[in-house]
Amino acid sequence: MTSPATPPATVTRADGRTPDQLRPVTITRGWLDEAEGSVLVEFGRTRVLCAASFTAGVPRWRKGSGEGWVTAEYAMLPRATSTRSDRESVKGRIGGRTHEISRLIGRSLRAVIDVAALGENTIVLDCDVLQADGGTRTAAITGAYVALADAVAWGQRHGHIASRGKPVLTDSVAAVSVGIIDGTPMVDLPYVEDVRAETDMNVVVTGSGTFVEVQGTAEHAPFDRAELDVLLDLALAGTAQLTAIQQTALAQELR
Amino acid sequence: MTSPATPPATVTRADGRTPDQLRPVTITRGWLDEAEGSVLVEFGRTRVLCAASFTAGVPRWRKGSGEGWVTAEYAMLPRATSTRSDRESVKGRIGGRTHEISRLIGRSLRAVIDVAALGENTIVLDCDVLQADGGTRTAAITGAYVALADAVAWGQRHGHIASRGKPVLTDSVAAVSVGIIDGTPMVDLPYVEDVRAETDMNVVVTGSGTFVEVQGTAEHAPFDRAELDVLLDLALAGTAQLTAIQQTALAQELR
Amino acid sequence: MTSPATPPATVTRADGRTPDQLRPVTITRGWLDEAEGSVLVEFGRTRVLCAASFTAGVPRWRKGSGEGWVTAEYAMLPRATSTRSDRESVKGRIGGRTHEISRLIGRSLRAVIDVAALGENTIVLDCDVLQADGGTRTAAITGAYVALADAVAWGQRHGHIASRGKPVLTDSVAAVSVGIIDGTPMVDLPYVEDVRAETDMNVVVTGSGTFVEVQGTAEHAPFDRAELDVLLDLALAGTAQLTAIQQTALAQELR
Amino acid sequence: MTSPATPPATVTRADGRTPDQLRPVTITRGWLDEAEGSVLVEFGRTRVLCAASFTAGVPRWRKGSGEGWVTAEYAMLPRATSTRSDRESVKGRIGGRTHEISRLIGRSLRAVIDVAALGENTIVLDCDVLQADGGTRTAAITGAYVALADAVAWGQRHGHIASRGKPVLTDSVAAVSVGIIDGTPMVDLPYVEDVRAETDMNVVVTGSGTFVEVQGTAEHAPFDRAELDVLLDLALAGTAQLTAIQQTALAQELR
Amino acid sequence: MTSPATPPATVTRADGRTPDQLRPVTITRGWLDEAEGSVLVEFGRTRVLCAASFTAGVPRWRKGSGEGWVTAEYAMLPRATSTRSDRESVKGRIGGRTHEISRLIGRSLRAVIDVAALGENTIVLDCDVLQADGGTRTAAITGAYVALADAVAWGQRHGHIASRGKPVLTDSVAAVSVGIIDGTPMVDLPYVEDVRAETDMNVVVTGSGTFVEVQGTAEHAPFDRAELDVLLDLALAGTAQLTAIQQTALAQELR
Amino acid sequence: MTSPATPPATVTRADGRTPDQLRPVTITRGWLDEAEGSVLVEFGRTRVLCAASFTAGVPRWRKGSGEGWVTAEYAMLPRATSTRSDRESVKGRIGGRTHEISRLIGRSLRAVIDVAALGENTIVLDCDVLQADGGTRTAAITGAYVALADAVAWGQRHGHIASRGKPVLTDSVAAVSVGIIDGTPMVDLPYVEDVRAETDMNVVVTGSGTFVEVQGTAEHAPFDRAELDVLLDLALAGTAQLTAIQQTALAQELR
Repeated sequence: MTSPATPPATVTRADGRTPDQLRPVTITRGWLDEAEGSVLVEFGRTRVLCAASFTAGVPRWRKGSGEGWVTAEYAMLPRATSTRSDRESVKGRIGGRTHEISRLIGRSLRAVIDVAALGENTIVLDCDVLQADGGTRTAAITGAYVALADAVAWGQRHGHIASRGKPVLTDSVAAVSVGIIDGTPMVDLPYVEDVRAETDMNVVVTGSGTFVEVQGTAEHAPFDRAELDVLLDLALAGTAQLTAIQQTALAQELR
Repeated sequence: MTSPATPPATVTRADGRTPDQLRPVTITRGWLDEAEGSVLVEFGRTRVLCAASFTAGVPRWRKGSGEGWVTAEYAMLPRATSTRSDRESVKGRIGGRTHEISRLIGRSLRAVIDVAALGENTIVLDCDVLQADGGTRTAAITGAYVALADAVAWGQRHGHIASRGKPVLTDSVAAVSVGIIDGTPMVDLPYVEDVRAETDMNVVVTGSGTFVEVQGTAEHAPFDRAELDVLLDLALAGTAQLTAIQQTALAQELR
Repeated sequence: MTSPATPPATVTRADGRTPDQLRPVTITRGWLDEAEGSVLVEFGRTRVLCAASFTAGVPRWRKGSGEGWVTAEYAMLPRATSTRSDRESVKGRIGGRTHEISRLIGRSLRAVIDVAALGENTIVLDCDVLQADGGTRTAAITGAYVALADAVAWGQRHGHIASRGKPVLTDSVAAVSVGIIDGTPMVDLPYVEDVRAETDMNVVVTGSGTFVEVQGTAEHAPFDRAELDVLLDLALAGTAQLTAIQQTALAQELR
Repeated sequence: MTSPATPPATVTRADGRTPDQLRPVTITRGWLDEAEGSVLVEFGRTRVLCAASFTAGVPRWRKGSGEGWVTAEYAMLPRATSTRSDRESVKGRIGGRTHEISRLIGRSLRAVIDVAALGENTIVLDCDVLQADGGTRTAAITGAYVALADAVAWGQRHGHIASRGKPVLTDSVAAVSVGIIDGTPMVDLPYVEDVRAETDMNVVVTGSGTFVEVQGTAEHAPFDRAELDVLLDLALAGTAQLTAIQQTALAQELR
Repeated sequence: MTSPATPPATVTRADGRTPDQLRPVTITRGWLDEAEGSVLVEFGRTRVLCAASFTAGVPRWRKGSGEGWVTAEYAMLPRATSTRSDRESVKGRIGGRTHEISRLIGRSLRAVIDVAALGENTIVLDCDVLQADGGTRTAAITGAYVALADAVAWGQRHGHIASRGKPVLTDSVAAVSVGIIDGTPMVDLPYVEDVRAETDMNVVVTGSGTFVEVQGTAEHAPFDRAELDVLLDLALAGTAQLTAIQQTALAQELR
Repeated sequence: MTSPATPPATVTRADGRTPDQLRPVTITRGWLDEAEGSVLVEFGRTRVLCAASFTAGVPRWRKGSGEGWVTAEYAMLPRATSTRSDRESVKGRIGGRTHEISRLIGRSLRAVIDVAALGENTIVLDCDVLQADGGTRTAAITGAYVALADAVAWGQRHGHIASRGKPVLTDSVAAVSVGIIDGTPMVDLPYVEDVRAETDMNVVVTGSGTFVEVQGTAEHAPFDRAELDVLLDLALAGTAQLTAIQQTALAQELR
């Protein structure tokens, strides 16, 4: 492939975006009445409900460590997709993809949590995809961070987290997908682009611009170093915008 | 117990309602972009997403019968409730309560479907509780009927259902909970009333006012014939209102 | 439908019974040598073995409450029915119907137990259908009550239940099925009637004639208030007879 | 150990039997109304219900072979034993012991079936232990043979099995347990003897006196060749008596 | 059958062996770097990896008894056989055969362990079949004993097992298969002989020549007493050779 | 962190290697007698058995496509690690990590297979870890490629794959882990380094040096672009060496 170093400005995508443009992103805090943190996050038509459940105490294997625990579970409603999928609860087991994404979300959030500052408390993030149009895992990470921040604030307000001066959240975290379609690198792929991508990468980045996860897969053709570089540039630019959207959302008064 | 024959108008409930008053009910059609029918139904703070998936063809055991099939699956998101529950997919099996409600919804809808007029097509209703505050099964039935009506219309518009003059839906169906709290019969119980009810009944009624299901349970004290009669009256009045709300929702143009 | 208010005396059923007549009912106590209570109950050809297992102590979540616990499990042998069914243990999961009936039996028995008088003891009722010819759940409830009574007596004889003057069993409980076949309301349906019933109802009633459960289902056609009333009358008459049979059985010396 | 070659006639067992004496054995045919063959078999207090289900046709992997298939499933009711066991259906899986015994019963019956003479028909034997007091697998095999014989006769009467002159059952089969308790070899061990046995053996023998299975286990102490010989003698004598009881049962008119 | 009392010396088997000759047997100790005992055992092309895991402490139900516990798990890699089998982990359950063999290995090893001398320690034997060519369970028992002996020695060297003069291992144990093929009794059957055997027997014998398990099955034709005797002679001769091979292996310095 | 751009030559690792040096790698082809391709691959003490099973035909969903299918399953023996893990077959389900690695291996191999040239044939790669000391997934991919190549050759030799001039394997594929330990980037991490790595990356690379997968995870601290670049350099150098080792192995005559 010849120099893909800059996404060509002249390419227009099916939904009218330029290659380096995100879909409309909205973050609605406090979507649930009871959860300690909850966010409905939308990347275009992709809609994920992120609920953070705060409980005092930690699992047995962590008791007495003085450290907290953050974990995540990802799932998709059966009709989130264009054709219905069977429920994993009915099949009696969780598929590999579900496991993989749950673990990814958990690792991403733990990268910005100071478990010692959290103290012996547990926060579980449930990310349920209500509608899927590509990028569900990156939307989930981006929304889950905001729900997590609200749950941490809840724990502080209610005295479960001691205020020792050290911040519980050491940074923020957001994620975006990037890929190469017909030779053009693009950011934030909806389903129609995702299935056609030669290469597909999910990148998780902190608010300060360092990498937490880089997961690139050659779906149809291996990629070279130059292509990898362009994709990483696009991802860093995209996550920087998502960081700003997260900060704006968190700056508002929670109803 | 002395004559409970009329709900006393003087009792005011925690949320300000009279004993025979429903919570605010809203039905939002077309909540999903891809499903053939979809409804977000709200009974107060209870919020259920009902998705109807239409597929041409029937399960193998029904092939060649000329008849269609309608079935339902009910589930609850882990943080729909005030404390988090484990996912049934993670536990690897579906609980008895989930099974029971899924079967109830399916039977209720099949009571108003003419499977011969539907032809060899299948409609699956997924009712996922996003937030639970009592009455999730009755909200699910009430919303699922509207999603079902939209899916039937979709099947007719796309030529999967032949128009032979016979209606596919022979009636509408709605459901409400009733119960006796501190000796007072009441309709549409939120969680705080539900846990205190001496007797709890879910009643499924057609648009023309006949019973599809009557499921009454003495939670704390057996009930007599007079109490049963009052509860049935309350249920018939409540479902009549729900029928009207369904008709209003269906009369609007689907975006 | 025109006035179904009285079951017509002129209708004769396939097995020769009148519409309001029970099948021959037998209750054999002490069918097992080791169980604290055990009953083989027969409603015509339907045969259910009810075993009550008494254990001192309660599940962890109930410890220290001073209250006992009664629960039930229902199952069917694979060849209880006219064609063989697969075992739920082989399929690796319990079906919805099994769950539903187990829960129904448990609730019915708990309606007549004073858990405080029982003290911190647990009684598990296993109701295994050896032969099924309709009405297995109602036979199970009717027989399980007798096995429960024997297990309570065993607990008292062996000093596990303190005698504080308060009775452990506050009432007795029995159940019967009723339904409308070809427009005629009938009691205690065998399989051939059950599959043809337009409406099918299981009613659980205490010895003093109050309702514990009313579960009516329109299998083929919704039913109106008048029909419901006739069915309830039939059920009350039928359960009154079952109560008498239970009392006779319990009055005999247990070998 | 010194010569155990002859069971000493002077030893009396807890239940009054001599070492080489079987418990009272009864075989009740036609215990179920619908099964093609059914037997309630009792070895003392051990009670097993054996149901034979005949179906025309064979599993897919055997189609077109011209040969039939016989298989068995063994299970125990939760309160068959002196303390209650959890149901395998509730635990969601079948234990090793259950699997092992099911396979043993199946192999034992297949040893006396001519699958070619059976033709492409399937017979499933369900052996459910209603009460367990030792020897449940040997009682199951002994009773299952009789139920199998009745199912074969049913298949012949109903024209599913062609009569080509060749017998479908080439022999009969019965089984008994033997063991050494306190140095004394004994036959047909009830539970109290079984748990104390140094060596425990289950022996499956045809009507003509040849071995189908020999399964000996040193529970507490390895056994030598001389002890093995005595146990085999006892088993052959015991199964010969069981064969006679089977023949007597099968000679009667089935109601 | 006429006198099978002596295996005819003139019969030559497909692999060139005489009827009473074992396949080449090798025992490689210390095959794993971390396990407390580990053996790669080969009976011809059959290859089983036996790993013994020693842990201080016992399961809860055995705590305070002063006695240890030895158990075993057997499994087969999917491509151990000539055609691939599905993984039991993927199927989500363990088959009957696997359960049966795991239990057999555990019982065989416990027959030569003095659990009181072992003290409250647990040893788990994992026997994984890397390649299967008949006799996998007998190879597993023979190899597992050597791995167990190494694990016991490890426990003594590391002070987990007190040295009270009493040996932990009271004897050694080995196992071999025997069978009758075309009327000829033979020892140590590879797959091609195993599938053709009329009778198949697995015999587990201590180093001092007493029986731990005798499991004989008539695969195609019941066997008589004379045949049984010849098979037992062959098995005792074969296990005596295996005992010698075990002793030679254990006499070497473990690297 | 200051410029990590070149791994410092002066750092010596616990096992004596330089930061950019692989562990001793051996590839033993034909380790199994029956599998169409089989390899025992060793990266230091990590030992993985890779078996390729070739079957003519494809799963139903791919029939008639003219294309073949390659898939993989990864698993670990219970005592592959320094302390024993429970079997996934016993737990009744496969963990997230196992699923994730199985999918990674499958994708990596499919990146170098021309499924059209393979024709309607299926190759399953079973990668079973016999001993684990870090890098099991990268060793599995590296070994599985060689087993796959042998299975493809087998399919060609036996006429299952038509020779149309187009190669079935379009390239080779190998994988290696890289990570940053105490600020030093290193290649091919054993367990002791892996647990201490701040950042851990698995990189899958074709023989021609393009990327198939890049999976980087910040275990303890997010990493910046410069660090990422050094790690990618190390990975490309490491996989180039592995490619050479694969070629040498494949150049030898298979016994």
